[in-house]
Amino acid sequence: MDSKQTVTVALDATGGDLVNPLSVAKAIRFALVLNPDLRIKVYGSQKINVALASEKIDAKRYDFILAPESIPQDEEPRKVIESYSQCAMRKVIEAVSNHEADVAVSSGGTGPLVTLSRHILGVLDNLRPALCAKIPSGPGKYALMLDLGANAQSKSADLYSFAKLGHCAYKVLFNSSSPRVSVLNVGTERNKGSALVKEARDLIEKDRLLNCLGFVEANQLFTGETDVIVTDGFTGNVALKAAEGVASIFLNAQGMKKFFSKLARPDWLIPWQYNGSLLLGVDGLVVKSHASAGQEAIAVALVQSYNMAKLHIVESIKNELKIS
Amino acid sequence: MDSKQTVTVALDATGGDLVNPLSVAKAIRFALVLNPDLRIKVYGSQKINVALASEKIDAKRYDFILAPESIPQDEEPRKVIESYSQCAMRKVIEAVSNHEADVAVSSGGTGPLVTLSRHILGVLDNLRPALCAKIPSGPGKYALMLDLGANAQSKSADLYSFAKLGHCAYKVLFNSSSPRVSVLNVGTERNKGSALVKEARDLIEKDRLLNCLGFVEANQLFTGETDVIVTDGFTGNVALKAAEGVASIFLNAQGMKKFFSKLARPDWLIPWQYNGSLLLGVDGLVVKSHASAGQEAIAVALVQSYNMAKLHIVESIKNELKIS
Repeated sequence: MDSKQTVTVALDATGGDLVNPLSVAKAIRFALVLNPDLRIKVYGSQKINVALASEKIDAKRYDFILAPESIPQDEEPRKVIESYSQCAMRKVIEAVSNHEADVAVSSGGTGPLVTLSRHILGVLDNLRPALCAKIPSGPGKYALMLDLGANAQSKSADLYSFAKLGHCAYKVLFNSSSPRVSVLNVGTERNKGSALVKEARDLIEKDRLLNCLGFVEANQLFTGETDVIVTDGFTGNVALKAAEGVASIFLNAQGMKKFFSKLARPDWLIPWQYNGSLLLGVDGLVVKSHASAGQEAIAVALVQSYNMAKLHIVESIKNELKIS
Repeated sequence: MDSKQTVTVALDATGGDLVNPLSVAKAIRFALVLNPDLRIKVYGSQKINVALASEKIDAKRYDFILAPESIPQDEEPRKVIESYSQCAMRKVIEAVSNHEADVAVSSGGTGPLVTLSRHILGVLDNLRPALCAKIPSGPGKYALMLDLGANAQSKSADLYSFAKLGHCAYKVLFNSSSPRVSVLNVGTERNKGSALVKEARDLIEKDRLLNCLGFVEANQLFTGETDVIVTDGFTGNVALKAAEGVASIFLNAQGMKKFFSKLARPDWLIPWQYNGSLLLGVDGLVVKSHASAGQEAIAVALVQSYNMAKLHIVESIKNELKIS
């Protein structure tokens, strides 16, 4: 795929707590208008198809594939793999595997998405896959944070995997030669924190290819002090949700829209801009959209997925990892 | 101590990353003005004594005890206990133990503070002590969250301890008959999350004295959905610091003070109002102030400590726990 070629996004439109077919259709229209060389394969229920038609989206720009079945987010991994052969989530990942699509996007359960992606696409270089978010670190500046919940529990070797994956992804996404990598901890002193984070920090420091800054505290996540924030999936998920919760309270405060000027409001902190976490470490491009994503957030996930496909991010990470 | 009696606060004025003697003195003056029946024993360096004099604080309202030594926050527990016999942190806890003070306040390292408090005051009912913060859950509403970092690693039985302590403290602090207790997790579904949180939830649910709501997500910490939030010290510390970080960005945004009306700004989210975490589970009242607390935050910690001493909170928790 070169830069002139069309990017095809395979969208699982069944997932999410609050899927609204009209929001999905409006998001698709928006993403297609922004990117003339984007095509979307939409997998979902007939309601989605009706919504796409009612929004009068150019039929040449999308395919609709009837796949109304979704996977319960707490389904056992073995059942996820053995059953649900016709579900939309499986079909979008298979589309990437079969080169019918460049990227799979789903707002279904994280557990099934990680299980199916690992199973169908395979894992890169024995690394532990992780969900990676682009987070704001100042106006127009970004950091990557991983894991956000692909793994329920992690060992220090897993955190080292996340550091390598985050390092490679940051280099590709932000054209940086030596991204600063830090481990999230309860303090920045070397002796602080759990055995897990200290062992992980030691492993990352020993790797000369990585630029390890040591520890970072959660109140420094959004201040630009580091480029790649490594954490276990439980802590990462909790930290980002706590941040989103506070941002939402400020953004929805009484009178906020009236009193805030464009200059005063830290627009770069609005959570929906950052929808679309990348599943790093599998051999194919998979993006997880927020389960309760609204229309704007779904559009962001589609556009981000398009951009990452254009960057050939998985191929570039494989080159960085020297995987042939 | 009945409500007419004086409350004596023993303040370790040596700790903290950025101790400014004048900020400490101004905070003391403010707390003394607010509470006419408050006395403060100040333990610290001669600089603090000079600052107290320069602020012209009534000498009858405070004692100064020269104790300039502090404990490195990453000192080994055994050395914390065996050495440092003259340090201010040890002296304020001993003052509580000897009934010379009603509450000890320190902004020194959490590790040494927990170690010394457990050693000198003893532990209640074999429970695992935890740092507990009052957090905002809406205008004029509060929740308790624990542990915030008293323990580097926790088992499910420890989280059950935290639930019992939080339940008792909430009843006493907020005069509630049946506080809602929840375990912080990456989702609210019963099958989500780590083995730790699922086992803890099961232990708490089985206890008929506790009103367990199950799991709560980090974006619901400040929305009033629960009263007591139970978590391990690592996750709790990270979640609160992430929240504080975002709140600070919003509160310090360019033009914020100019454009925000009193009505629009969620004043109840300003972090310094919540300075002063309670060390629950030890047989004496110990309050941890934020290491980088400014003048307002130190004053808040002193006033909160005074209020908790007035409530006889440790005695009340012992009554709740049916410890004679």
